[in-house]
Amino acid sequence: MPEQHRWPQLDQIAYGGDYNPEQWPRETWHEDVRLMREAGVNMVSIGIFSWALLETEEGVFDFEWLDTVIELLHENGIAVDLGTPTASPPAWFFAEYPDARVIDRDGRVLGFGSRGMVSHSAASYRDAVVRIASALAERYADHPAVLMWHVHNEYGVPVAEDYSPHAVRAFRTWLRERYGSLDELNRAWGTAFWGQHYGDWEHVGAPAAAASTVNPAQRLDFARFSDHQLRACYIAERDAIRAHSDKPVTTNFMANQEFTTDLWAWAKEVDVVSDDHYLTAADPEAHIGLAIAADLSRSVGGGKPWMLLEHSTSAVNWQPRNVAKRPGEMARNSLAHFGRGADAIMFFQWRASRSGAEKFHSTMLPHAGTDSRIWREVVDLGAKLGRVSEARGARVQADVAILWDFESFWGQSLEWRPTQDLDPRERIRAFYERLWRDGITVDFALPGADLSGYKLVIAASQYLLTRDDAANLTRYVAGGGTLAVSYFSGIVDEHDAVHAGGFMAPLREVLGCDVEEFLPLRAGARAAVDYTAADGGAHRLSADDWQDDLRITTAEVRGTYAEGPGASKPAITRNAHGDGTGWYLSTRLDAGALETVMGDVYADAGIAPAGLPEGVEAVRRVGEAADYLTLLNHTDTAADVPVDGVDLLTGAATGGSLTLEAGGAAVVRLEG
Amino acid sequence: MPEQHRWPQLDQIAYGGDYNPEQWPRETWHEDVRLMREAGVNMVSIGIFSWALLETEEGVFDFEWLDTVIELLHENGIAVDLGTPTASPPAWFFAEYPDARVIDRDGRVLGFGSRGMVSHSAASYRDAVVRIASALAERYADHPAVLMWHVHNEYGVPVAEDYSPHAVRAFRTWLRERYGSLDELNRAWGTAFWGQHYGDWEHVGAPAAAASTVNPAQRLDFARFSDHQLRACYIAERDAIRAHSDKPVTTNFMANQEFTTDLWAWAKEVDVVSDDHYLTAADPEAHIGLAIAADLSRSVGGGKPWMLLEHSTSAVNWQPRNVAKRPGEMARNSLAHFGRGADAIMFFQWRASRSGAEKFHSTMLPHAGTDSRIWREVVDLGAKLGRVSEARGARVQADVAILWDFESFWGQSLEWRPTQDLDPRERIRAFYERLWRDGITVDFALPGADLSGYKLVIAASQYLLTRDDAANLTRYVAGGGTLAVSYFSGIVDEHDAVHAGGFMAPLREVLGCDVEEFLPLRAGARAAVDYTAADGGAHRLSADDWQDDLRITTAEVRGTYAEGPGASKPAITRNAHGDGTGWYLSTRLDAGALETVMGDVYADAGIAPAGLPEGVEAVRRVGEAADYLTLLNHTDTAADVPVDGVDLLTGAATGGSLTLEAGGAAVVRLEG
Amino acid sequence: MPEQHRWPQLDQIAYGGDYNPEQWPRETWHEDVRLMREAGVNMVSIGIFSWALLETEEGVFDFEWLDTVIELLHENGIAVDLGTPTASPPAWFFAEYPDARVIDRDGRVLGFGSRGMVSHSAASYRDAVVRIASALAERYADHPAVLMWHVHNEYGVPVAEDYSPHAVRAFRTWLRERYGSLDELNRAWGTAFWGQHYGDWEHVGAPAAAASTVNPAQRLDFARFSDHQLRACYIAERDAIRAHSDKPVTTNFMANQEFTTDLWAWAKEVDVVSDDHYLTAADPEAHIGLAIAADLSRSVGGGKPWMLLEHSTSAVNWQPRNVAKRPGEMARNSLAHFGRGADAIMFFQWRASRSGAEKFHSTMLPHAGTDSRIWREVVDLGAKLGRVSEARGARVQADVAILWDFESFWGQSLEWRPTQDLDPRERIRAFYERLWRDGITVDFALPGADLSGYKLVIAASQYLLTRDDAANLTRYVAGGGTLAVSYFSGIVDEHDAVHAGGFMAPLREVLGCDVEEFLPLRAGARAAVDYTAADGGAHRLSADDWQDDLRITTAEVRGTYAEGPGASKPAITRNAHGDGTGWYLSTRLDAGALETVMGDVYADAGIAPAGLPEGVEAVRRVGEAADYLTLLNHTDTAADVPVDGVDLLTGAATGGSLTLEAGGAAVVRLEG
Repeated sequence: MPEQHRWPQLDQIAYGGDYNPEQWPRETWHEDVRLMREAGVNMVSIGIFSWALLETEEGVFDFEWLDTVIELLHENGIAVDLGTPTASPPAWFFAEYPDARVIDRDGRVLGFGSRGMVSHSAASYRDAVVRIASALAERYADHPAVLMWHVHNEYGVPVAEDYSPHAVRAFRTWLRERYGSLDELNRAWGTAFWGQHYGDWEHVGAPAAAASTVNPAQRLDFARFSDHQLRACYIAERDAIRAHSDKPVTTNFMANQEFTTDLWAWAKEVDVVSDDHYLTAADPEAHIGLAIAADLSRSVGGGKPWMLLEHSTSAVNWQPRNVAKRPGEMARNSLAHFGRGADAIMFFQWRASRSGAEKFHSTMLPHAGTDSRIWREVVDLGAKLGRVSEARGARVQADVAILWDFESFWGQSLEWRPTQDLDPRERIRAFYERLWRDGITVDFALPGADLSGYKLVIAASQYLLTRDDAANLTRYVAGGGTLAVSYFSGIVDEHDAVHAGGFMAPLREVLGCDVEEFLPLRAGARAAVDYTAADGGAHRLSADDWQDDLRITTAEVRGTYAEGPGASKPAITRNAHGDGTGWYLSTRLDAGALETVMGDVYADAGIAPAGLPEGVEAVRRVGEAADYLTLLNHTDTAADVPVDGVDLLTGAATGGSLTLEAGGAAVVRLEG
Repeated sequence: MPEQHRWPQLDQIAYGGDYNPEQWPRETWHEDVRLMREAGVNMVSIGIFSWALLETEEGVFDFEWLDTVIELLHENGIAVDLGTPTASPPAWFFAEYPDARVIDRDGRVLGFGSRGMVSHSAASYRDAVVRIASALAERYADHPAVLMWHVHNEYGVPVAEDYSPHAVRAFRTWLRERYGSLDELNRAWGTAFWGQHYGDWEHVGAPAAAASTVNPAQRLDFARFSDHQLRACYIAERDAIRAHSDKPVTTNFMANQEFTTDLWAWAKEVDVVSDDHYLTAADPEAHIGLAIAADLSRSVGGGKPWMLLEHSTSAVNWQPRNVAKRPGEMARNSLAHFGRGADAIMFFQWRASRSGAEKFHSTMLPHAGTDSRIWREVVDLGAKLGRVSEARGARVQADVAILWDFESFWGQSLEWRPTQDLDPRERIRAFYERLWRDGITVDFALPGADLSGYKLVIAASQYLLTRDDAANLTRYVAGGGTLAVSYFSGIVDEHDAVHAGGFMAPLREVLGCDVEEFLPLRAGARAAVDYTAADGGAHRLSADDWQDDLRITTAEVRGTYAEGPGASKPAITRNAHGDGTGWYLSTRLDAGALETVMGDVYADAGIAPAGLPEGVEAVRRVGEAADYLTLLNHTDTAADVPVDGVDLLTGAATGGSLTLEAGGAAVVRLEG
Repeated sequence: MPEQHRWPQLDQIAYGGDYNPEQWPRETWHEDVRLMREAGVNMVSIGIFSWALLETEEGVFDFEWLDTVIELLHENGIAVDLGTPTASPPAWFFAEYPDARVIDRDGRVLGFGSRGMVSHSAASYRDAVVRIASALAERYADHPAVLMWHVHNEYGVPVAEDYSPHAVRAFRTWLRERYGSLDELNRAWGTAFWGQHYGDWEHVGAPAAAASTVNPAQRLDFARFSDHQLRACYIAERDAIRAHSDKPVTTNFMANQEFTTDLWAWAKEVDVVSDDHYLTAADPEAHIGLAIAADLSRSVGGGKPWMLLEHSTSAVNWQPRNVAKRPGEMARNSLAHFGRGADAIMFFQWRASRSGAEKFHSTMLPHAGTDSRIWREVVDLGAKLGRVSEARGARVQADVAILWDFESFWGQSLEWRPTQDLDPRERIRAFYERLWRDGITVDFALPGADLSGYKLVIAASQYLLTRDDAANLTRYVAGGGTLAVSYFSGIVDEHDAVHAGGFMAPLREVLGCDVEEFLPLRAGARAAVDYTAADGGAHRLSADDWQDDLRITTAEVRGTYAEGPGASKPAITRNAHGDGTGWYLSTRLDAGALETVMGDVYADAGIAPAGLPEGVEAVRRVGEAADYLTLLNHTDTAADVPVDGVDLLTGAATGGSLTLEAGGAAVVRLEG
């Protein structure tokens, strides 16, 4: 598929949101398009939950209302991102095919009345999604308003795994293809343990609830399979659309929020990566989680611009406490996504629903109407995005990669690990947060990727690491790279089997050490480290949760445990390997400790903090004609940033320094 | 039904308890009646769990033992409140009709062996309860000992909702009757959201567990339906009894403890309101919860005297920690119910069961026998109640009403609300507690009730408020009333749909403001208010959990946020409307803050605190011949109360002032 | 069965572990036996999870690989404890007999893929276990390497109760045998309560999940039944083996870790008691829990030596945080078991599994290989055990017995007890810990046992106590014994029915008091006691959770409540009865309080603390030729212990005093 097909044919940054006109009388539609124009909306996503109204009985279609909506939008210059409504099959579907309901791990049959509650392995469902997607594509392929296709909605949410008989049968088929023989499956799963040997394919099932811990390799494969089944449904819809249309097809990811879909694999199947992102309200620094999500969306797409298909103007409704955004926060969030590569800024949803499960979710047009802070900020944001549209297509460049591997997450999240305190995403956030504060831009990468372009690679929690991928990391360092590995990495292979040779054996060469024994700590216990910095300074570093009993081969010991079961043993090591350096950090260092150690790691990698004022975020997009620096002040006080160029939001030249007001933002076209 | 039928023909306050002679050999029965007489017991409730012994097989009855028990009680001058045993169908019933078992929301079939585990939608159950109720009524209608009928036991406990096929079918029937057409149901439920449109009645089901949040209007209707099904069973039994007997029929409520039955609707169906009440042991001021329950029991019955059918002499057995009552506490509890309108003081149960689930529940005759504190206090209480019996029939009068609306509770308790900190009953308790401490008596009322008799009406948490009910409140204020509204009120209509016009739109006129956006707080965050009192005094009020972003139209701003996301915005407003005043309190004020604000509200309403010593409770009953003031000292020190009259408990004239000893009580026939 | 059959014919302390060669290629087996010899391993347990590899289809056996393994072990002088693999039926079994799957209390069918997930009431399972056990016994009965039989694995783990139709039918049969008539069952279960009367045996079921609390006597009987069913399966296997072999048969218990099997009953059915023990990682003094487990293993076997069939060299993998053992801890644990009567010290497992649920469980040969702390300690421990082997067969003697009664645990663990703070094992641990710190050795005993050999008997939490057993305790005191009873003892009979006469009535004579009412405390409340010691000293004792309202008959009040609902009432009493003394402690005394009170109790019993240094454990085994004192230093500092003899671990004579280094151990053959 040629590159030019991969972006909807808009001449601005896309701005808009999900639009659900079927919830409103037709007179409201006219008010909607008028207000959309007022807000600068240039594209909306429609049809996402409209199946029951489009296919009123099996095979009986009613497109009249949708024709009308699309025509009305088109007349008003608003483009359409046309959804397939397959995330929510109609009531008639479940009545006709009750066996297509999801059965959860405990054997509960999940009923109709919510969304996302269908077995993606049921042939009846696959047939139905192809039918509706084909019908939509056939009808609207050539409509000039329709610029792109939006398949389904947030695959994997709210439920990714299905234990129905359909899924069990499909799992067997998938396993036969994966392993070829039962002998190979028995070997891969280690079924000699606990007497789980299979002598017949028909005896192999899904890893449903059992009396105790179920075979972990089986569960890991079931996670792979479940992801595969969702993706197979996506591909079936996409191909049904492509039979009629060559406009770009996407489906909205939930990067850094939903972990059952392997976005690296999904990104290969979409024409443009798109993402939904919602702040974690309980986190006062939720904008860091946002930055991770944005960088991940960009990374899985190979660095190309991507679309933010959903975020919120203010509070959501499904978290324990749904904190409203403060004035200006929506714009900062939007520009943060833009700064990290998003060329579309869209929302769930246009107008607040009066009924249903999400009526307390904020929207572009709130229950309070247009005499409201939110509406005024929505209109203002539309104008702002127009002013920065020249930056479309510019690319973000990063010197640092953090490994992000869904399969490793799946393996590590299984039962009976050394301690419940292990949390791979916590460590990724900790390292990322350190780099964010230092103003250093990050890509995410798979451990088997070409890493040669990075000065620093961080394995924050790479539990599952194949020999091949470990060799890739080793080659990267030998070639001059700097690698920082945090604990509980390199433990198992792709079958969740401990590496022959012991924990971290595949990284022994590059790190100059391996792990003789894990020393997890009791709740509340501390694990301080006495660390000698590169400048000779002595530091007592704070840490907890975990220690290792290390065996040193070639590594230099840079930190030693001051307390805990590992007291007096090595805690932090540095190993020269080839032209590069491998660091190992064997405990959960806190933020201050990470700052100290990462300072030395940066030096090895030849990078340095950007020296920004605290709480100011800066990301650069490199365009063909110019570079653009997005600057966001997340604090309550103004901050001065040395920068030379023109702030596109105001049109003013910075004259060498720009004052970001409290909560303020700028997008500077750089000079010189 | 004429008024005289509505109270059992006793010439004293009813005193006694549940009596389960079937648990004991017959020789024990004679000891029982002897001790009942010693304690002053004049009525007992029997037969409540006797189905399996009365109908030993389907249609085969054995009344011999019950004849004997009733005769023995009658011979000893003890009246009978005769129960129908339908809360606990026999083992043969479930063996014959296994489909009549309850299925819970997760699909679990609830088994025999407990109680209350039957589908109230199963025809087999309805037939069976009519058969046993008819048989009992026919046999005992004319027995002089039987003064009243006690149908079933605590409807809604332990399980109110049933998702069995019987329930699903009945739900469909109920919905057809409610909505008439599918179009109307689709509109009411907002099924356009998430593609839940129904094209066939047969596709509509119960809101069983699904993958994500289920349609809230459906769930609200299912709560209504479940309440309706319980009540329909009650009515079937009641009518079966009335075919044979004109003695009063009741069923025991659980006011302020069980929230699945709409007691306003139930109270219309009973001849006399009766209630069961148990203290919340973890609450050191559980007597305030008791007062709420008593006031609610009185209020749902329109102010008429009511019966306390169950409470406990000391600890219960089903709470996490079952704290025993301290000496004198049982009498204070009993007199608190009496003071708030109860003309019957009864217990679960007479004699402690040696076996079964409730053997650790306290009783009138404890395991320890008659040489025990409890027994001595039981005997003493019987005597006390004899001395206050002249007050029977006297009515409690209240100047203040707090809105209490089960439908609003049901709506608000659904998933995905703005914050999990919202708890309607917490706010009702907070306002009630303020009034309790001020010695101001409270009624509860529905928002659509005639409120004209009240000086002050409080909407502590009226999430669901129809336009009509809002108009009723508005008229009440226009007519001179004072209305105090706490946050998250007036949000949705009867279908859980946000009011057109925005949050609190229906109250905009009376309050002079509405809510542009909710600002729920993070856990632990504070929301102080700078408040200017009517006397000009400045107060910093403590609050948390919630703020609103208000839009003021005509209201006067009396308090402003000093911190939090609403900082510097209006927090507390007062609005003159017609001849009255509407207050709005937009945050969770703590007890001290409420004291300050309510002082001003009281002044608007023309009421004032009673000026009682701290921890002293006082309630007045207004009789035809005299008024009676019940005084209770909940503290550990003596307290003087200015009062003129005769303390019926001691027979002594107070001479203008009465000293209540620590933990003491008095019932004063007022003079002058 | 003659005594000599009851111990495997080894001339050393057994040393080794579970060996699962089927997880490894055959070349690894040769390395295994070489390393076993290096470590001093003389016995391994094999075949425990090998069913699927031994019976590849129903009735089709493949013993070749097992023949080879046993022969290889035999050639290397390593004995075999041969397991029956019945804890983990093969996949083909569940495919053929899906009805043999366990159904849990909520109705969930537990699937294949874990272990221990079979209905022990299914005839198909019983037939299958007899077939495989017979086949193994027939084939290997005469193999000289096979010294004993190891049936199944950890009965009761991970699931002991089964609610399948098989279980329901078997439960009815078991009840008919137990009660003879339905009348008797109705009486025993108190079915008059809540209308649960049964008129037909077919209506009686298992106590599955219901809407509220299920009949407690039914649940208690179901716990007895579930234990019985497991044991019946064991007996069937044992008898199948005995038809071919007269070598000892055992099954591995989980003393003080698993509470669904009544080890007193089980111990009668095994030729030698064996136990698995794992430290509770969260407990910094987990060695005290170990000591309890070891003493219980010895006690259920009547004091005879027993086998530790499994423990761990370091961390396990199934606890929330799996703390590794510190250097020397494995040896101290091992010698603690030895000191308390174990003549076998074995591990789960020999070589770390690369795959499966337990790959993070420590082993004798860890993932890290032989260049590791664990391996070096394993080799050292093998040598140590060789040096102490002369002590085999020596017996531990105790002056104190603590009552340990599984049926009482089962009764007390049911719902709706006076407070959730009641925890029988917590109190047993508290008293045991006091005695452990005082260096006083403890047996465990049933309340109906012959207690005449003990100076002191402690009923730490004997909720269920029959009249007969209470009489036994009373006779014990009358005969000169000292009895200390803690609260919530003597409450119910064998049917969970409160004793006629009130709480603790059966102990009224021996204790000189009974309980009028329970006074459980609110969370966090305190219950201090003013106590007068035997020496006249006044003590304020710290306590919480519970108080009683006592009625004193003949007892002397030694402590009075200083606070709480029982303030100024008796808290601790002492009663002279016959030639002995009965103490009652009515609250949860903390460790310091117990030290004070137990000092007086010891004096009555004529025992005294051993005066060991803090943290030093000492236990004596009395042999025919000599006595052996095992000494363990659990602290981080050296400690001197006065002892005369030869330390077998070093061969050095102590010369009157022995210095135990930090974490050190000694086994001293005593002199004089």
